[in-house]
Amino acid sequence: MSKLIYVLNGPNLNLLGKREPEIYGSETLADVEARVRRKAATLGLEIEFFQSNYEGAIVEKIHEARERAAGILINPAAYTHTSVAILDALNAFDGAVVELHISNVHQREAFRHHSYVSARADAVMAGFGTLGYELALEHFK
Amino acid sequence: MSKLIYVLNGPNLNLLGKREPEIYGSETLADVEARVRRKAATLGLEIEFFQSNYEGAIVEKIHEARERAAGILINPAAYTHTSVAILDALNAFDGAVVELHISNVHQREAFRHHSYVSARADAVMAGFGTLGYELALEHFK
Amino acid sequence: MSKLIYVLNGPNLNLLGKREPEIYGSETLADVEARVRRKAATLGLEIEFFQSNYEGAIVEKIHEARERAAGILINPAAYTHTSVAILDALNAFDGAVVELHISNVHQREAFRHHSYVSARADAVMAGFGTLGYELALEHFK
Amino acid sequence: MSKLIYVLNGPNLNLLGKREPEIYGSETLADVEARVRRKAATLGLEIEFFQSNYEGAIVEKIHEARERAAGILINPAAYTHTSVAILDALNAFDGAVVELHISNVHQREAFRHHSYVSARADAVMAGFGTLGYELALEHFK
Amino acid sequence: MSKLIYVLNGPNLNLLGKREPEIYGSETLADVEARVRRKAATLGLEIEFFQSNYEGAIVEKIHEARERAAGILINPAAYTHTSVAILDALNAFDGAVVELHISNVHQREAFRHHSYVSARADAVMAGFGTLGYELALEHFK
Amino acid sequence: MSKLIYVLNGPNLNLLGKREPEIYGSETLADVEARVRRKAATLGLEIEFFQSNYEGAIVEKIHEARERAAGILINPAAYTHTSVAILDALNAFDGAVVELHISNVHQREAFRHHSYVSARADAVMAGFGTLGYELALEHFK
Amino acid sequence: MSKLIYVLNGPNLNLLGKREPEIYGSETLADVEARVRRKAATLGLEIEFFQSNYEGAIVEKIHEARERAAGILINPAAYTHTSVAILDALNAFDGAVVELHISNVHQREAFRHHSYVSARADAVMAGFGTLGYELALEHFK
Amino acid sequence: MSKLIYVLNGPNLNLLGKREPEIYGSETLADVEARVRRKAATLGLEIEFFQSNYEGAIVEKIHEARERAAGILINPAAYTHTSVAILDALNAFDGAVVELHISNVHQREAFRHHSYVSARADAVMAGFGTLGYELALEHFK
Amino acid sequence: MSKLIYVLNGPNLNLLGKREPEIYGSETLADVEARVRRKAATLGLEIEFFQSNYEGAIVEKIHEARERAAGILINPAAYTHTSVAILDALNAFDGAVVELHISNVHQREAFRHHSYVSARADAVMAGFGTLGYELALEHFK
Amino acid sequence: MSKLIYVLNGPNLNLLGKREPEIYGSETLADVEARVRRKAATLGLEIEFFQSNYEGAIVEKIHEARERAAGILINPAAYTHTSVAILDALNAFDGAVVELHISNVHQREAFRHHSYVSARADAVMAGFGTLGYELALEHFK
Amino acid sequence: MSKLIYVLNGPNLNLLGKREPEIYGSETLADVEARVRRKAATLGLEIEFFQSNYEGAIVEKIHEARERAAGILINPAAYTHTSVAILDALNAFDGAVVELHISNVHQREAFRHHSYVSARADAVMAGFGTLGYELALEHFK
Amino acid sequence: MSKLIYVLNGPNLNLLGKREPEIYGSETLADVEARVRRKAATLGLEIEFFQSNYEGAIVEKIHEARERAAGILINPAAYTHTSVAILDALNAFDGAVVELHISNVHQREAFRHHSYVSARADAVMAGFGTLGYELALEHFK
Repeated sequence: MSKLIYVLNGPNLNLLGKREPEIYGSETLADVEARVRRKAATLGLEIEFFQSNYEGAIVEKIHEARERAAGILINPAAYTHTSVAILDALNAFDGAVVELHISNVHQREAFRHHSYVSARADAVMAGFGTLGYELALEHFK
Repeated sequence: MSKLIYVLNGPNLNLLGKREPEIYGSETLADVEARVRRKAATLGLEIEFFQSNYEGAIVEKIHEARERAAGILINPAAYTHTSVAILDALNAFDGAVVELHISNVHQREAFRHHSYVSARADAVMAGFGTLGYELALEHFK
Repeated sequence: MSKLIYVLNGPNLNLLGKREPEIYGSETLADVEARVRRKAATLGLEIEFFQSNYEGAIVEKIHEARERAAGILINPAAYTHTSVAILDALNAFDGAVVELHISNVHQREAFRHHSYVSARADAVMAGFGTLGYELALEHFK
Repeated sequence: MSKLIYVLNGPNLNLLGKREPEIYGSETLADVEARVRRKAATLGLEIEFFQSNYEGAIVEKIHEARERAAGILINPAAYTHTSVAILDALNAFDGAVVELHISNVHQREAFRHHSYVSARADAVMAGFGTLGYELALEHFK
Repeated sequence: MSKLIYVLNGPNLNLLGKREPEIYGSETLADVEARVRRKAATLGLEIEFFQSNYEGAIVEKIHEARERAAGILINPAAYTHTSVAILDALNAFDGAVVELHISNVHQREAFRHHSYVSARADAVMAGFGTLGYELALEHFK
Repeated sequence: MSKLIYVLNGPNLNLLGKREPEIYGSETLADVEARVRRKAATLGLEIEFFQSNYEGAIVEKIHEARERAAGILINPAAYTHTSVAILDALNAFDGAVVELHISNVHQREAFRHHSYVSARADAVMAGFGTLGYELALEHFK
Repeated sequence: MSKLIYVLNGPNLNLLGKREPEIYGSETLADVEARVRRKAATLGLEIEFFQSNYEGAIVEKIHEARERAAGILINPAAYTHTSVAILDALNAFDGAVVELHISNVHQREAFRHHSYVSARADAVMAGFGTLGYELALEHFK
Repeated sequence: MSKLIYVLNGPNLNLLGKREPEIYGSETLADVEARVRRKAATLGLEIEFFQSNYEGAIVEKIHEARERAAGILINPAAYTHTSVAILDALNAFDGAVVELHISNVHQREAFRHHSYVSARADAVMAGFGTLGYELALEHFK
Repeated sequence: MSKLIYVLNGPNLNLLGKREPEIYGSETLADVEARVRRKAATLGLEIEFFQSNYEGAIVEKIHEARERAAGILINPAAYTHTSVAILDALNAFDGAVVELHISNVHQREAFRHHSYVSARADAVMAGFGTLGYELALEHFK
Repeated sequence: MSKLIYVLNGPNLNLLGKREPEIYGSETLADVEARVRRKAATLGLEIEFFQSNYEGAIVEKIHEARERAAGILINPAAYTHTSVAILDALNAFDGAVVELHISNVHQREAFRHHSYVSARADAVMAGFGTLGYELALEHFK
Repeated sequence: MSKLIYVLNGPNLNLLGKREPEIYGSETLADVEARVRRKAATLGLEIEFFQSNYEGAIVEKIHEARERAAGILINPAAYTHTSVAILDALNAFDGAVVELHISNVHQREAFRHHSYVSARADAVMAGFGTLGYELALEHFK
Repeated sequence: MSKLIYVLNGPNLNLLGKREPEIYGSETLADVEARVRRKAATLGLEIEFFQSNYEGAIVEKIHEARERAAGILINPAAYTHTSVAILDALNAFDGAVVELHISNVHQREAFRHHSYVSARADAVMAGFGTLGYELALEHFK
């Protein structure tokens, strides 16, 4: 039986491919979802793909994952730096957690260098563009 | 006529009793609500019991309390450390405010030592477990 | 054809005129909206007026503005100091942005001296009371 | 057989009810002792009640408690913020420890926001006035 | 009888329109003075317009305003960030004070984010270009 | 009837004139007491002169002063920088308080630049040597 | 032959007695000068009394003192906290230097707690009101 | 023609598999090299594999890469946090740079949270164990 | 004639061997005293052995040493981190001073990394257990 | 035609050779001017030599240089560390700027380690004594 | 069979006895080695004595010790404060580690107060001069 | 007899002229050496010219200079900011030391604003390009 992985995307990622393409590239989030699903198929993983601009909605999606998922791949976007609530939700999740950023956040404003999520994530990846989603999935194999 | 107290619970507290029981104990939030209601009855208090994972929903519940409640007992959970919006909502509330944490936040990560809510709360309590809800109610007598 | 300006208001501003009138004055948000609409008419501007207590809702309103508006006048209230998500949404908006605070935030608590939004706003205004909304509109002429 | 609880009070608390009544109320320390003893009786607890202005005397009283007491309820007053010696003494005590402050220290000067004692206390309570002593006793039940 | 407003300009503003036009625009200080006088006329205000590169001269101009003016509109330029003397002079002035910056200082070097003057100013405005002088005058109506 | 002034001296001042004379001069504390008493006589003041190396003893002497003295002249020595307990005791005293240091503490180690006592003292004096005691007494006239 | 003492007063002190009398009292600087001259006469000191709102003017007055004066009594006012130039000028002066503040600066804003001048002053005095000028003169006897 | 990638390993990585296996796993660096070479073959990449405990040797290996390599995959180990020399060498390299850490450095001591190398790296990866080397290679495809 | 060495022990050391043996070992302070006396005999040193929980008592014991002792071996325990009074007392002592900690304080909480006493001690030793007392004595030979 | 270089000297430099010769040497500013003029002649440069103790006067001299000079050699002395106004004036100057300090400021008080001027200067030189003026001129060749 | 102890010395210690004798004394490193070997003989220890100015060489010597030595006595000199690589190497060593400094580093520049090595060392000793090497050996008995 | 000067160059300077020419210019280190030798000849100085990427090698070259050289001109490059070992080596050198940076380090990343070497250097120079080497030599005349 295949493992279920939650792929969670934070605020403004619904604009992917539409804003600041020099930072984030021109693929849309739908493109990313397609890539992720194709890659998952080759790894024998199932995918629940989700995006929200609401901190509370992401918290609740993580709660849902507790009963269903073997792992969470999360791109917390802006909530990386400000959300203790998402950290606490992840702390209540027993599976593997991978944190992903499309751009290299270490080269942007200083406030983007700190991540609450990293304190819980098993692995962290930044700057690999949308390819990162595919690479990160291999962690769950 | 009995006084109405709002008992507000922040993000992830819907998981109470289900996550990290060595920190939070094994009682569920429903158990806590039952305890709170029993205790309130002995003190002649009425209870409005609420939990949300959304910062905005907690803000609006506090607005609602402005017209109805004599006091607010709030366990802001993760929003303790990040929400100026909840502080501002409480600043617009005239009654008594008690802030409660189930665990002793002072013994956890450094970012949990700061509370925006404490700047408004009349009293603060941490580490009494779920018994704290009952003790805190006495403040509103 | 007149230009469309989004006037966005953050958490607790629905209480305007009802809380701490010594800081915020006694006009309600509806009064402000009326002032804004009257002033806009004289400047040949159209107005979309919006308030929310949810960070996610404000983020999504800014997304909506990307397709429709020439400018955003935003009073982010408490989210000024805590929301990277709103900053990121504004970074994805191409038009003019003005940040407004009714009171002089520089005279309040130290945490209110920092604004994430100012890093994107073209202009910032604080302490002009509700008159500030009218003055700020002139920036979009 | 009833459990023995040490109730320890730090510097200047002998002035309780005589200084700054707007902060500390008008009850004297003798009044507090009476309340504590009445409450303890209802809980089946015995009380050793003590106050000193000397850091060394409080340290030694905690040493004494090691052999005799099941718990310590301590209002360290000014030594909260400056005494590593009291922290070390409490670290050498095996029973339950509750830290209590009559006023909400989080609303006073910044140096009062840090407590050495909280690193050892099982629970902390501030701002409940002298009622706090009674509430805190329930922790030892 | 019309009210007298002092419009005070700090160091280097005599170069306005001559230096870094991409930041400060191409209007000269004389152009600004003309705009200010025209706008003042429509508001029934009289103007005393002044610029100095000397901290002491600005301090003394503020002293002079104490006897004569109903308000001060000040662009302290570099002294914004370094002059306690100007703050103290403004503290001795009873009328309304508006602080103005032509560019959005929050987007420049970190040391430009702090203003001594804001601690006294009733209102602050930055990034509106030279239009800001006109808008600010409306505060004194 | 003459006013009573408490002249309180903190730790190590019993060594005055015996240690580091290049910093503290060669007068002993007894010499200082004699100077103080002579000067007080000319000002119509009575003196209670006290020195202790115990923080608790100084706290209690201040308590005693509450009932008896019109003012306190205190050289808190090392406790200047570390004692919240002495600050709290002085906060409970209603009369005038002058803080005195024999040497100019601002020119010594950085930790000597901060004084808890200054938050309560009406006046502060440092570097006047033992003459400072005489000068400070004039404040109580 | 009597010794000459320069009594230097920094910015805004020309307003003494006219601004914020609850902080600075109601005596004018002319009243202070008169007090100083009377006191100096009793001590056999001559006085050069000076006030300026210009940092440069105070620097040059200190240069002048190098050839003429045995001591400097300086109330640097706002320049206390911002002027390295005055510190450097005092470093080039060989006589005694006393720094004086009328109010207790340690109880005002944090930026007023640091003095560049204290690094050079032999003695420092704050909070004695205008009486401080007389007391400080005794240091030069 | 295949692209050449330099895979550089910093101090103590020669001990891989021999020290702290609970953090770093039980594979040796030779095992990693074998994995890397196998993976590179599938991607059409050539590999230069290198480890040194000397900062200077790593700097010089990067210089060598300037003429020969299309990319650098570097696990700087301890030098991540202390070497500006390696950063400067990488700044002089024109190809792609990926920074890799076997463990999640964000969960270790605070000094391990800062990386000089991240300021130059195009992408960063931490916590994927030795699998990370394979994943990172895909960036160079 | 043999030299006299004062061996001073700070707060809670009277519990040595009774508390936290995994940190401090199982020897009591009496055991340590016996070791110290035996070792001193072999080195031709005389010993005054003292422990107190009172900062003031330690200060006074150091004063006593000024007339009698050639050296001080001090384990200031908690007062290491908080006592300027003990530092000042040691500054008034002319002989050799050795500071000793039984455990390696550098591996405990951050506030234990700073020692006021080290600013005066000629030598410092931590983590040698009770053997450290013997080793330190050799410094006085 | 020879190039004109402004050589500007900040506060207290008129005392050069007269104060603290162990730091600044025994040459006077007139000596320095003579050296500078001799050296300039050999390099085909013309010199405008200026000193002021007034920040405003230095600002205005820099304004004057905008129309006339090819370069500015500035020894800002105390204003190095405190003057944003001088930085802003230099920002409005298009030619080359060299910052010079006679002593090595990096070895003096910490506040002398920061220079506002360095943010604009093309080159900086400290500790070469008055020879530095000659060396710096070569930059303008 | 005797135990082998590695005695490792960091950069510049080859100059011992040749530089700054007022800080480090006049014994050379060869003298120290001789002392260490004599003392070791009395304790039944064997010694490997090593000095290097290269961080990498010290790292590799510690690797070598992993297979051979029962303990490491290390004087890391300048690398104390800057080398994470040495800390990591020591973390991979299972035996006892003692850190030694000849002078009392706590009385030198602030950057010398922090030691990376102390986080791993079992014991630390500073200020005992070259005698410290002998004392420290006793730890390995 | 001519004086010998060591000209030492830190890591990555072997790439001079080959990397980031917009910052460092297009001259190679060999070109610089030629310039230095020509200039030295005119000043009657002999030159030992050296570059290394190894901190340890630079330390040892400074040791060598102790016996042979009258002065050291050092461009420590990246080790400026990280090497206490080089500082300590220079502290053991008795001759003159000049620190040189080709670019103005004060305008680059914040970590480049601090220099360990400046604490020992007699003079410091930055931003004069490769001309700086020639200018600096004049210090040794």
